[in-house]
Amino acid sequence: MYDQHLARRAGENLKALREKKPLIHNITNYVVMNYTANALLACGASPVMAHASDEVEEMVSLAGALVLNIGTLTPYWIDSMLKAGKRANELNVPIILDPVGSGATKLRTDSAKQLIDELSISVVRGNASEVLSLAHEGSRTKGVDSIHTVDDAADAALILAKELNTTLAITKTVDLITDGKLIYRVFNGHELMGYVTGTGCTATVIIGAFLAVDRDPVEATTTALAYFGLAGEKAAIKSQAPGSFQVAVLDALYTIDEKQMGEGAKIHTQ
Amino acid sequence: MYDQHLARRAGENLKALREKKPLIHNITNYVVMNYTANALLACGASPVMAHASDEVEEMVSLAGALVLNIGTLTPYWIDSMLKAGKRANELNVPIILDPVGSGATKLRTDSAKQLIDELSISVVRGNASEVLSLAHEGSRTKGVDSIHTVDDAADAALILAKELNTTLAITKTVDLITDGKLIYRVFNGHELMGYVTGTGCTATVIIGAFLAVDRDPVEATTTALAYFGLAGEKAAIKSQAPGSFQVAVLDALYTIDEKQMGEGAKIHTQ
Amino acid sequence: MYDQHLARRAGENLKALREKKPLIHNITNYVVMNYTANALLACGASPVMAHASDEVEEMVSLAGALVLNIGTLTPYWIDSMLKAGKRANELNVPIILDPVGSGATKLRTDSAKQLIDELSISVVRGNASEVLSLAHEGSRTKGVDSIHTVDDAADAALILAKELNTTLAITKTVDLITDGKLIYRVFNGHELMGYVTGTGCTATVIIGAFLAVDRDPVEATTTALAYFGLAGEKAAIKSQAPGSFQVAVLDALYTIDEKQMGEGAKIHTQ
Repeated sequence: MYDQHLARRAGENLKALREKKPLIHNITNYVVMNYTANALLACGASPVMAHASDEVEEMVSLAGALVLNIGTLTPYWIDSMLKAGKRANELNVPIILDPVGSGATKLRTDSAKQLIDELSISVVRGNASEVLSLAHEGSRTKGVDSIHTVDDAADAALILAKELNTTLAITKTVDLITDGKLIYRVFNGHELMGYVTGTGCTATVIIGAFLAVDRDPVEATTTALAYFGLAGEKAAIKSQAPGSFQVAVLDALYTIDEKQMGEGAKIHTQ
Repeated sequence: MYDQHLARRAGENLKALREKKPLIHNITNYVVMNYTANALLACGASPVMAHASDEVEEMVSLAGALVLNIGTLTPYWIDSMLKAGKRANELNVPIILDPVGSGATKLRTDSAKQLIDELSISVVRGNASEVLSLAHEGSRTKGVDSIHTVDDAADAALILAKELNTTLAITKTVDLITDGKLIYRVFNGHELMGYVTGTGCTATVIIGAFLAVDRDPVEATTTALAYFGLAGEKAAIKSQAPGSFQVAVLDALYTIDEKQMGEGAKIHTQ
Repeated sequence: MYDQHLARRAGENLKALREKKPLIHNITNYVVMNYTANALLACGASPVMAHASDEVEEMVSLAGALVLNIGTLTPYWIDSMLKAGKRANELNVPIILDPVGSGATKLRTDSAKQLIDELSISVVRGNASEVLSLAHEGSRTKGVDSIHTVDDAADAALILAKELNTTLAITKTVDLITDGKLIYRVFNGHELMGYVTGTGCTATVIIGAFLAVDRDPVEATTTALAYFGLAGEKAAIKSQAPGSFQVAVLDALYTIDEKQMGEGAKIHTQ
């Protein structure tokens, strides 16, 4: 069912973001740093990338949200993420985790689980295999191998969100958002987004920016994904190949206004 | 002499790449990570960047090819390259090396030579000074200083490829590819490619992607360079300056189809 | 007062840069590496990024200028900056420092001050809070908190440049350049530059490139900032949003010629 309240909320969050220009502290991977910083600027937020163990606690205390992304992790970076995350928890700065590649290697799966275990994380965003790899042994969550349909993923995510006590966002053609009770689906987006590196990571930082102005994790995540997906739709009107599409997405993030957002959001409740 | 077989093969490799979407594992430099990841996606391949010592062996076991690039090397990264490379050799995953800056500093020259010595590498791609810096003392290869013409470089590369038991690609206006027996030349390309950072590194990852679907190193390298050069030619039709050209190259990598590739490849045998 | 001499000089420096193609050695942050390398290529310079402790001294000996940027610093990188910087000083290679985020965390402020203390630095470029954070305790410089107007910043910068014995560039809508005696202002630029990550860092590398062909720090800095600002103005004619604007800036850096530069520079002396 189309959710008019959240569609309107998407526009309001976007407006608030541009007014407040929150600092978003990113400890993220090398591949996407430039693009996600530009995406945050295009949204109206203010990005900072800082990973030195000696400064992350100080930096996160200035931030409206903390983005943790394990895309090119090493142990040093995970330690800094834990340090920044603990300080963020003390200060009530919301944290979003992007468990890039969790499930693909032991280091990634273990690191993502450690971050979830030791920190209070507001939102986790990934693809189905990444997100569902976070289930503990003995979890009631079905493994990724038994996920055959969108509804399988929804059932598994609902259980896992409850177990991990966080909001999960599984993004694909249709994005699924759940906190273990509510389930939302976002139908915005475009297939060319799959041909640009860091599209998922960019969705993550935009959720981070929305969390800085809307402390309801489900609402912030759902509206952020609608916004990012709408930017993809608008970019695809101007471009039919990934190089120029990637550029057009940044342009669209910048130009979408509150009204276009409210009208363009395709958010459904179950 | 124009090589019609390889021109057709270029189109077939491109088609195979888009069907198989192989995972390409990159341990590469910070400068180009985003662009080479986007280039691989635009080709149809699936890039992953992972350099942590604790995960590279696991990651490379999932890959169709391993790209090693020393552009912003430190000892930690070289160790990870060796670790990944040894596992790749065990699993018969082809390796391509980009010895960025070899010859310019001792660290780079020594590291590139160590990688060549300790690993079985399918292809090395660089400019003439980088590639020819890999000759051992006592090599019959003439030093770079005595290379004055394209034919000098061809002679030196032929000897060196035999000595190193690998395929060498020296890329410039005309690209030269040899395994110590055969010599091919690729005439595709455009001068604006020299004004975009990481053009060489991008050629390297595309060779990596082609190696994942064509295990003949000379054939994979030659066809990949024709494809990348053709993308440069097509981009130059749309753009006359490096910012928009860089974007147009990604677009062209995505839009060139098998037929255009077969018709556009300018590959010559000696 | 409009400075016709420096306007002409801007064009001459640009021409010299394209003729000499100096190597610019960058030890810089992960976020901007790709974009600043592309900006240097578009200008006509030749960028290299190298941060390994084992090679920075050798690399900087090949360079026409050294760019130090602490945007994603860790202690290892600062050590390499000091090592490269000391060798640069011995060889009379000019150094430009970008103290990204100095003032925001202790690590950044301390690191920036250490670089200034231990090295002879030709130019420091940052925003007002970054640059003015470099004042020692007991400095006559007013703190950033007491800077309310452009003239406040100018007074503080004048004193600080004298104390630090360097040239300071504070960039914003209007750029301010001083060596403690002279004060110049550059009026080139466009507001969209604030929506592209690494705009300041890019200004810094272009100053580095100009220093490689013009050893007068004030003149090199002032003309470089006029050039970069003019590129922003030309880009804004083609683009009204930050993704395509970013691309258009690179195009403009490449296409602006000596004559356009001389005519377009808006440099004022006090």
